[in-house]
Amino acid sequence: MKIFSKEQIISQLNLELAVKRLEEGFIAFCAGKVQVPPVQAFAFTAANGDCCVKSAYVEGSDTFTVKVSTGFYDNPSKGLESNDGLMMVLSATTGQPLALMQDEGWLTGIRTALAGRIAARLLAPKNVQAIGILGTGMQARMQLEQLGAVTTCRKIIVWGRSDAGLEAYKAFATGLGYQVQTTRNAADVARAANLIVSATPSREPLLKSEWVQPGTHITAVGADAAGKQELDAALVARADRIIVDSIYQCSQYGEISHALKAGLISESQLAELGALLAGKVRGRENDDQITLVDLTGVAVQDAQISSCALASMQG
Amino acid sequence: MKIFSKEQIISQLNLELAVKRLEEGFIAFCAGKVQVPPVQAFAFTAANGDCCVKSAYVEGSDTFTVKVSTGFYDNPSKGLESNDGLMMVLSATTGQPLALMQDEGWLTGIRTALAGRIAARLLAPKNVQAIGILGTGMQARMQLEQLGAVTTCRKIIVWGRSDAGLEAYKAFATGLGYQVQTTRNAADVARAANLIVSATPSREPLLKSEWVQPGTHITAVGADAAGKQELDAALVARADRIIVDSIYQCSQYGEISHALKAGLISESQLAELGALLAGKVRGRENDDQITLVDLTGVAVQDAQISSCALASMQG
Repeated sequence: MKIFSKEQIISQLNLELAVKRLEEGFIAFCAGKVQVPPVQAFAFTAANGDCCVKSAYVEGSDTFTVKVSTGFYDNPSKGLESNDGLMMVLSATTGQPLALMQDEGWLTGIRTALAGRIAARLLAPKNVQAIGILGTGMQARMQLEQLGAVTTCRKIIVWGRSDAGLEAYKAFATGLGYQVQTTRNAADVARAANLIVSATPSREPLLKSEWVQPGTHITAVGADAAGKQELDAALVARADRIIVDSIYQCSQYGEISHALKAGLISESQLAELGALLAGKVRGRENDDQITLVDLTGVAVQDAQISSCALASMQG
Repeated sequence: MKIFSKEQIISQLNLELAVKRLEEGFIAFCAGKVQVPPVQAFAFTAANGDCCVKSAYVEGSDTFTVKVSTGFYDNPSKGLESNDGLMMVLSATTGQPLALMQDEGWLTGIRTALAGRIAARLLAPKNVQAIGILGTGMQARMQLEQLGAVTTCRKIIVWGRSDAGLEAYKAFATGLGYQVQTTRNAADVARAANLIVSATPSREPLLKSEWVQPGTHITAVGADAAGKQELDAALVARADRIIVDSIYQCSQYGEISHALKAGLISESQLAELGALLAGKVRGRENDDQITLVDLTGVAVQDAQISSCALASMQG
């Protein structure tokens, strides 16, 4: 078994191949051609930690993947990162372990950011006035890095809870060539931007329906577990198109689950990203529609990004 | 993360510590103090393979374990072993990956054999006339190796389907110091032996009730998946004590599941190995009772054997 470090993976991952593999993965998932066993979850109450094991096999692939992710929220006080993780890639023809990706969670970050890039490419309005980012963490940075490939807009407005976080994000985004405005009022983001990405661990709605302009596209990536919510349920209900990575999972705990439970939308209004990629459902039809993509993160992305990482490293 | 090879693990595993850890694990499991998420299972139909991911955390432990096991049954034609596997040990206080055990399934084999040893120590009759072994494969060998620690009997009778398998097993057991008889008739085993271990992948009963002597102890380890069966349901019904590693799992697909489904026994007759180890249920009470232990294999064993392996290697 080959072992790759986070540094090796970051320097060698072929991003264009990764986009292609992720798109194929979403299409296969939507077509029922991915084996996705139930997620294994642990709670380490005394240590304020959790762990989940996600595994997936895209039928017909040469490999399958087992991913272990951990979050131990007292780690920073010990000088450690809160999140860690690794992926194992095994042969789907012999069962042999092929590679251990010691990516420390980076592959999960990049596959999430690339899904955001795919969503924006498919659904963003033609003329992006400004990119709005909710959140200043690692995923908020990775999303912005990837959006640069699908829009020529170089103006952003970023919302965060702390001035220090906003200043650090501004320095980062300026370094990428963006003209950056910061705010602690999320309404400012909705008023200035018509391509918005929310990437926070919020447990209450940050973005209200009445602030959002017609024609806006929103990608929400924060609601990856029960209890999380970034968007007002009324905003979800107002969207003309709602695309999700997994109807099942998003209905359980995704951004749209709140609007579903409140009876503001019905499951028949939802379509999966794979269906949109396969041309089976319509995307944006005009410049006035509000489009929404809810990404909770699916194991097929892990299978595709890790096999892509292995292929990238084998040249 | 430290990486250990099968050879390192075999040469350094502290077996006495492993027995102790496994016993503690069975007791914790029975007391509801082990987090055991659902098993993840894959089927690779085209390659005639399967994979399962089993994970467990014994509450209060320093570590938890994720195990990946594969079986690809056309591998021998490619010069590869059918079974492969590895275990990952992670910190339960920081989430960091601590060790990768590239044991190729050996730790699963030894934890199963040690459970058989624990069962025999607790339930075998005082005077073992002969040890009976059904099966000639790797697990049948490991069981015999471990039984040597809990009985002074050095006479065995082994049943197998092929003369070649029996001859190879005889050479192995003779090398361990046993006086060995081989047979292709399972009735011979029951007539000669009163401590019997069945370790085959059989899908039909091998051992019939009418052959078995009063006072016999039987440990069945083969029925680790749906459709497998080594013992006649009437023999299960005849047993005076039925001990299982997991009531839930054994009721699903263990040896005793067939007798349960046929209505020959009821769940109230079952007790877990952890309850026996904790002194909460009675074991053998006299030399005439037939005792039966059904081991389907539980993830807590993986957690305990892998943490023991790590402790053994850290000296």
